[in-house]
Amino acid sequence: MQQSVHSISIPTRGQGLYEFTDAIERFVGESEIATGLLTVFVRHTSCSLLIQENADPDVQTDLLGFFRRLAPEGMDWLVHTTEGPDDMPAHIKSALTLTSISIPVVAGQTVFGTWQGIYLFEHRRRPHQRSVMLHIIGE
Amino acid sequence: MQQSVHSISIPTRGQGLYEFTDAIERFVGESEIATGLLTVFVRHTSCSLLIQENADPDVQTDLLGFFRRLAPEGMDWLVHTTEGPDDMPAHIKSALTLTSISIPVVAGQTVFGTWQGIYLFEHRRRPHQRSVMLHIIGE
Amino acid sequence: MQQSVHSISIPTRGQGLYEFTDAIERFVGESEIATGLLTVFVRHTSCSLLIQENADPDVQTDLLGFFRRLAPEGMDWLVHTTEGPDDMPAHIKSALTLTSISIPVVAGQTVFGTWQGIYLFEHRRRPHQRSVMLHIIGE
Repeated sequence: MQQSVHSISIPTRGQGLYEFTDAIERFVGESEIATGLLTVFVRHTSCSLLIQENADPDVQTDLLGFFRRLAPEGMDWLVHTTEGPDDMPAHIKSALTLTSISIPVVAGQTVFGTWQGIYLFEHRRRPHQRSVMLHIIGE
Repeated sequence: MQQSVHSISIPTRGQGLYEFTDAIERFVGESEIATGLLTVFVRHTSCSLLIQENADPDVQTDLLGFFRRLAPEGMDWLVHTTEGPDDMPAHIKSALTLTSISIPVVAGQTVFGTWQGIYLFEHRRRPHQRSVMLHIIGE
Repeated sequence: MQQSVHSISIPTRGQGLYEFTDAIERFVGESEIATGLLTVFVRHTSCSLLIQENADPDVQTDLLGFFRRLAPEGMDWLVHTTEGPDDMPAHIKSALTLTSISIPVVAGQTVFGTWQGIYLFEHRRRPHQRSVMLHIIGE
């Protein structure tokens, strides 16, 4: 049994879904692990992770639209407002989605379904460099 | 240290929670791993995973009712509508719940609490065959 | 490769976020595993897990405020009401947040970002003793 850890940096340019499925498959391939478990972990609290459909980009538009409506800027009862109007909604959207995802690896590849891609879900308006940690264990 | 991977297929007959705790315990038992980590991963983006109370079925009724109200069919701002009125709400509900769950295994069993069961949360109206991947590592 | 499992008990005194980052780091340190994967699993369905900012406590106040508004007590369509007005909202809030979180371990520490802390998110009003299972694998 062996394991490998790798940190990737994802540049974001405002709110949206940034796919990084390729970076993950490359890491799995380079690990030379045939059967195992891959874990993806995001090191922030104002962006998050999501596995979603990567066929029709309209799905991403609607996901953004839904979360923007569910946790809009300007909710007048918020007390944490010093970091900008998009900060507390960003923490809320992060709390509603994922911080870590674990994916089985079989035959040297993740077992993603046909339509699945993995995304960094950026909730802040300004550009950021987001740090995502990858860990794989197996043989 | 050893590991095992297994794919299970869960038939669904419309929106609802489908418990498959038994299938998981069977897989853990057959692996003969006493201490380890079990990971459950769903290979779709319009159904998801949930650990919830398996005592009173009313809990499931209310969970369905809540998510139906939170992401109802017919939201008039949606752009992804070609796959039916229940498709985009399904992606939203998936984004709000879980794609993978990892559960420690002790004494040859998952450490589920007394009232916990694991469910496939189907968000589409039509029947589907849903693919769930199980991975266990330990010894 | 080695692994270790540990159960911790977190006392709660009503709805709120209870940080237990220290307990996790202590477990990782005592395991003497330098590189590996830590998994945290909560054994209940009316409280949950969350990784969030641990700098400004106002973030926690607003997270509580958001979830209380999203799933308030007294929704008149609920059918599961026998365990008190805060019980079904608690199951809903649990479904919207996390039951398990996996965190890579590097150089004998979790790879938490600067502002990340891990919390037990209590959704019930009365005091509880909450059971959280920790599992680490690595070497």
